[in-house]
Amino acid sequence: MAGDYDTLDWSVEEGVLTLTLDRPEALNAFTVTMAEELVDAYDRARADDAVAAIVVTGRGRAFCAGMDLSAEGNVFGLDESLQPTLEDLRERFEDPEIVAGVRDTGGRVSLAVYRCPKPVIAAINGAAVGIGATMTLPMDVRLASRDARIGFVFGRLGIVPEAASSWFLPRLVGISRALEWIYTADILTAEQALDGGLVRSVHPAEELLEAAQQLARRFTEGRSPVATALARQMMWRNSAAPHPVEAHRVDSLAMFYTSLGDGKEGVAAFREKRTAEFTSRASQLPFRPWED
Amino acid sequence: MAGDYDTLDWSVEEGVLTLTLDRPEALNAFTVTMAEELVDAYDRARADDAVAAIVVTGRGRAFCAGMDLSAEGNVFGLDESLQPTLEDLRERFEDPEIVAGVRDTGGRVSLAVYRCPKPVIAAINGAAVGIGATMTLPMDVRLASRDARIGFVFGRLGIVPEAASSWFLPRLVGISRALEWIYTADILTAEQALDGGLVRSVHPAEELLEAAQQLARRFTEGRSPVATALARQMMWRNSAAPHPVEAHRVDSLAMFYTSLGDGKEGVAAFREKRTAEFTSRASQLPFRPWED
Amino acid sequence: MAGDYDTLDWSVEEGVLTLTLDRPEALNAFTVTMAEELVDAYDRARADDAVAAIVVTGRGRAFCAGMDLSAEGNVFGLDESLQPTLEDLRERFEDPEIVAGVRDTGGRVSLAVYRCPKPVIAAINGAAVGIGATMTLPMDVRLASRDARIGFVFGRLGIVPEAASSWFLPRLVGISRALEWIYTADILTAEQALDGGLVRSVHPAEELLEAAQQLARRFTEGRSPVATALARQMMWRNSAAPHPVEAHRVDSLAMFYTSLGDGKEGVAAFREKRTAEFTSRASQLPFRPWED
Repeated sequence: MAGDYDTLDWSVEEGVLTLTLDRPEALNAFTVTMAEELVDAYDRARADDAVAAIVVTGRGRAFCAGMDLSAEGNVFGLDESLQPTLEDLRERFEDPEIVAGVRDTGGRVSLAVYRCPKPVIAAINGAAVGIGATMTLPMDVRLASRDARIGFVFGRLGIVPEAASSWFLPRLVGISRALEWIYTADILTAEQALDGGLVRSVHPAEELLEAAQQLARRFTEGRSPVATALARQMMWRNSAAPHPVEAHRVDSLAMFYTSLGDGKEGVAAFREKRTAEFTSRASQLPFRPWED
Repeated sequence: MAGDYDTLDWSVEEGVLTLTLDRPEALNAFTVTMAEELVDAYDRARADDAVAAIVVTGRGRAFCAGMDLSAEGNVFGLDESLQPTLEDLRERFEDPEIVAGVRDTGGRVSLAVYRCPKPVIAAINGAAVGIGATMTLPMDVRLASRDARIGFVFGRLGIVPEAASSWFLPRLVGISRALEWIYTADILTAEQALDGGLVRSVHPAEELLEAAQQLARRFTEGRSPVATALARQMMWRNSAAPHPVEAHRVDSLAMFYTSLGDGKEGVAAFREKRTAEFTSRASQLPFRPWED
Repeated sequence: MAGDYDTLDWSVEEGVLTLTLDRPEALNAFTVTMAEELVDAYDRARADDAVAAIVVTGRGRAFCAGMDLSAEGNVFGLDESLQPTLEDLRERFEDPEIVAGVRDTGGRVSLAVYRCPKPVIAAINGAAVGIGATMTLPMDVRLASRDARIGFVFGRLGIVPEAASSWFLPRLVGISRALEWIYTADILTAEQALDGGLVRSVHPAEELLEAAQQLARRFTEGRSPVATALARQMMWRNSAAPHPVEAHRVDSLAMFYTSLGDGKEGVAAFREKRTAEFTSRASQLPFRPWED
């Protein structure tokens, strides 16, 4: 299946999709095409039961050096003839004119990660700058190479943090640290990102990808695909609800349906002291608590 | 008052209710009866002015080994003839058929802790697995014995995390760590739980309960019961609101009424350099900002 | 401009407003006048393009010793003849009777910090107690002197935490630590506040103010005032939204307008390897996603 994309490599092994940003000659700089291909790839992975988990990394020495500012014309894909309002972003959210001319490309990628029912792991192998940094925030965990450098550098360019990072970054590192990183626009070392709680662990460069893939397998091998899909969505979504009763509503349903599905096998296997054999498919959820 | 419950022991000393999960022969495994008794006990403590704070622990060597899977029949109390929808969980939330046949028993316990106006402290004396782990999340702080083992093991059984834990766990340990613990379904040592921020402190087994009870007294002795009740609810609820103005509305009212109540004595005692004698009762709040 | 206020000193140097609580003879104790002057000062700073960032500190050996309980009469400014309800706080929020007689003065200050479009840094030079502690929570980061002592002491007085702190404190230090600090009403050392994540860094007393001012310059020098204003508001507000799509809506607009504004210069300067010269003014935002 590799080769379908111009800017990405898609490779599945033992249930783990490794999605590689694949413009090494440009330090995997982000383009509108890459944004569209990433959205397509996450949505494809969502529907593909051969994919249990996703690892995202970059080809060559960078993870993603940010928006490709070398491109001719409007690098952000904006239609300057529009004068959009917040109402446009509410009422005309899916209107092609607004999607193409106003909606932030990074944010469209972040929302695709957010709605993904599979664990997503970043393997940050080198520079992750601008959208290269913010695109990792909706992923579940981030592993970094010792050589990784992470920078929320928007302030240097006179622009704002994007890719819905104002929702994600404070959740990961707290509001005070998030603001300091945004204001200073500093380039963080892997150790600084680890100390700040942004990164889960730091690895020698040559071991990073294998560590991420191993973790992806640890997250999913012997697990119920439906239970994992529901759990990922429940954790991200319910934790942002104003009241725990919302979580109670959804997890009551999720317990109900998983108990009648893979849960029957799970309890039986537990009682019989054997390994469970789960048969559910994430492409076929027993109920759908959220639409996007 | 002890003995009213089949699965719990209720004991009040110096204003501290120690609620002990009391099925040591079954490692205090959770049953539908235990769920109902826990809800009853939290609601009773809510109304009982002799109770200033609550410590929850387990009899014997376990805290709670999870759902009692040895029980005959439907361990989750589900009515398989129903095909519930999210709308049922909204519109028929208190409908007995939905309560008994669909609503997660652990979530009903979590919501009872959530609405409790007294500080609640977990003293995790041993294995706390599945619902044994998630039932501690709505408590204010968790103390653990060195022997404690904590596991969000739902994934091994093909089911999802419950007890509204998707709302509580990311609040306590961050979304990335919460997801990793849920995906791996690992059994955590007390030290790992401490490092992750789930547990406040780790104690020698024989000192745990006394440490929890001492902390409960430190939280409440010489304090205004009404101010404590309002403060607990304000912290949990306002912090999940989308805007701080909501907190401002509620704490304006809470300041107004406590200033005219125990606050008058508090300020007088401060000016007179003496110990305040507060007389309010948590069973009689001066106003009620939230209904459950 | 200094001297306009009775309880504050206003001093601007190199784009940094240093706002000094200036009642050293009373350990800068908080009064209704100070509350009104703080709201005025934050709103003035909001509109004043000469101010890029704000540092808040206290004159003398205290930061702010809390509400001035030595004042005659009703220290909280309450009108005891009112019997306010939550509906009053919703429907009559700006009604002068409710504003003056019910709305918590600390909360009015916190909301003024919240809506401020400039980075705000606390330089906690000594005792910060009660409202002296809670007034720092809506600030972006807190630096403390080694001599600082921070106490959420409301419980000792029979009253509740205020200044919308039930929204802010759990965001900064987590719900469990926030509850413990509120229940115990302990006075924290600077080191304890640092360990708990409340304070960013601890400094020798004589170096504190300069460190805070340097950080304020690092946050703003060479930055676009409009991009900084939007970024601050985006981080605080979007992170509390129930869904990241809300962030996506706002940051799409913010990217759109900053890309056409200072972003053009920023990208040009990046391509030409020169320092960008941003010309936007925070007093003139290209769009206004939020009203307060």
